[in-house]
Amino acid sequence: MCVAGCDEAMHRALSRRRLFRRAAAGAVLATGLRAEVVSAATPPTRFEKVIDLTHTLDPAFPTFFGTSGIELRTRFSYRKDGLNFLQWVLDEHSGTHIDAPLHFSENGADASALPIVDLVVPLAVIDVAAQAAANADYAVTPDDIKAWEERNGRLPDRAAVAIHTGWAQHLGTAKYRNEGPDGKLHFPGVHPAAAEVLIRERSVTGLLIDTLSFDIGATKDFPTHVLWLPSGRWGAENVANLDQVPPVGATIVVGGPKIRGATGGPSRLIALV
Amino acid sequence: MCVAGCDEAMHRALSRRRLFRRAAAGAVLATGLRAEVVSAATPPTRFEKVIDLTHTLDPAFPTFFGTSGIELRTRFSYRKDGLNFLQWVLDEHSGTHIDAPLHFSENGADASALPIVDLVVPLAVIDVAAQAAANADYAVTPDDIKAWEERNGRLPDRAAVAIHTGWAQHLGTAKYRNEGPDGKLHFPGVHPAAAEVLIRERSVTGLLIDTLSFDIGATKDFPTHVLWLPSGRWGAENVANLDQVPPVGATIVVGGPKIRGATGGPSRLIALV
Repeated sequence: MCVAGCDEAMHRALSRRRLFRRAAAGAVLATGLRAEVVSAATPPTRFEKVIDLTHTLDPAFPTFFGTSGIELRTRFSYRKDGLNFLQWVLDEHSGTHIDAPLHFSENGADASALPIVDLVVPLAVIDVAAQAAANADYAVTPDDIKAWEERNGRLPDRAAVAIHTGWAQHLGTAKYRNEGPDGKLHFPGVHPAAAEVLIRERSVTGLLIDTLSFDIGATKDFPTHVLWLPSGRWGAENVANLDQVPPVGATIVVGGPKIRGATGGPSRLIALV
Repeated sequence: MCVAGCDEAMHRALSRRRLFRRAAAGAVLATGLRAEVVSAATPPTRFEKVIDLTHTLDPAFPTFFGTSGIELRTRFSYRKDGLNFLQWVLDEHSGTHIDAPLHFSENGADASALPIVDLVVPLAVIDVAAQAAANADYAVTPDDIKAWEERNGRLPDRAAVAIHTGWAQHLGTAKYRNEGPDGKLHFPGVHPAAAEVLIRERSVTGLLIDTLSFDIGATKDFPTHVLWLPSGRWGAENVANLDQVPPVGATIVVGGPKIRGATGGPSRLIALV
């Protein structure tokens, strides 16, 4: 395992090359000074079922830091004004949400700059629910990826990889954050060595998990974030209903926020099967 | 045309019946006291291209009321804290966004309660750009729907209908809001008589437009909103890139906010072709 961040420059260069290839494949519109890819070819895809991978966010939804993630303020009310209209005061990384590269880098892509072709990709689901049930600090290893591939074949090109830890069943209980007497959170995540395999040896666009963070809760320095996001990839946390999705064969549509400067934000994640 | 709201009770009953049929077709999970449909069958669908129908939102993005729709506050910064993390103070109906039934009703569905099966539907695009170029107050009529069907066949079952007025080209100029010396906004929209046809005579789930509102800008009492949203259907405004989408054959994925109590909100809209 290399030191986190050691290959950031290389990953950035790779990401730039990928972006140029994509731009050549898709329609490019000039929007102000920024060339924006608004459409792109994808491999032919077929589906006949939709699955919502999104939890409902409200002020009681648990957050990593333990504070409320959203406050809803009334701007207009139907009884008084004839229409309802709220203002949200929202911490970006609340509820089912994405992380953009900018979340853990100085100049990475913000949520609005993620290429659209990275937001509709094959979805692979790695199930480590048994391991996580036995060990709340379980971190997905390269061996878990290897075992998945032995059963399901090589990870699809440009896939998003979702980690099903079974933690969604604890939402609404203290076990979801699972703060211990040591003051640390205890929920499963992804070991940086597994993230390295996905970055270096496979062509993966995104990493999803059904916990508050794709780093294990007990780690305070976010080594997997530090490795994953500066490489130009997106993450998604607090993902719902992964138990409904087959290990391979689904497509994910990432309804992430297109807000300039956003480091991520609440997102509608939908699986097409 | 009936008086706005006159058939609200009937539409609500119809919406409830539709919901029960959908619940029977899909997997239902109990989430607290609310039975939530998280997956549902759809007609087999194939695509090989993705098109982003979303504008980038920032504090300068025009709004109906003329005030800024979003303020971005720094909670953590990479240089100081090792990560970037913002808080958004956001007016719900900003940027490319959806309207939920609750926006114009006392007890309609909020954004989190829209059935997932209504968020992945066939997309029909009605082009009235020529009419709107000649008349900024142009309102789509039942005849526009009829003319579209003569060319493209009957509107697909459960389609979302997008109105392409060409107004997206004015984004970034004063013409987008087009406030006149009369103090009114002047941009095209949908006549309530056309909305009635879509509600009563066709099976339509959503209504999209590339302007600030699916009511014409010059109308202050929102008759099409008053008719459309209480019927249990969603709307979408400030939609981008409708000129890239064929009149028929695309599927839209509505990445709307799943926030309890939200009357709508910024959404990632993606067309699959």
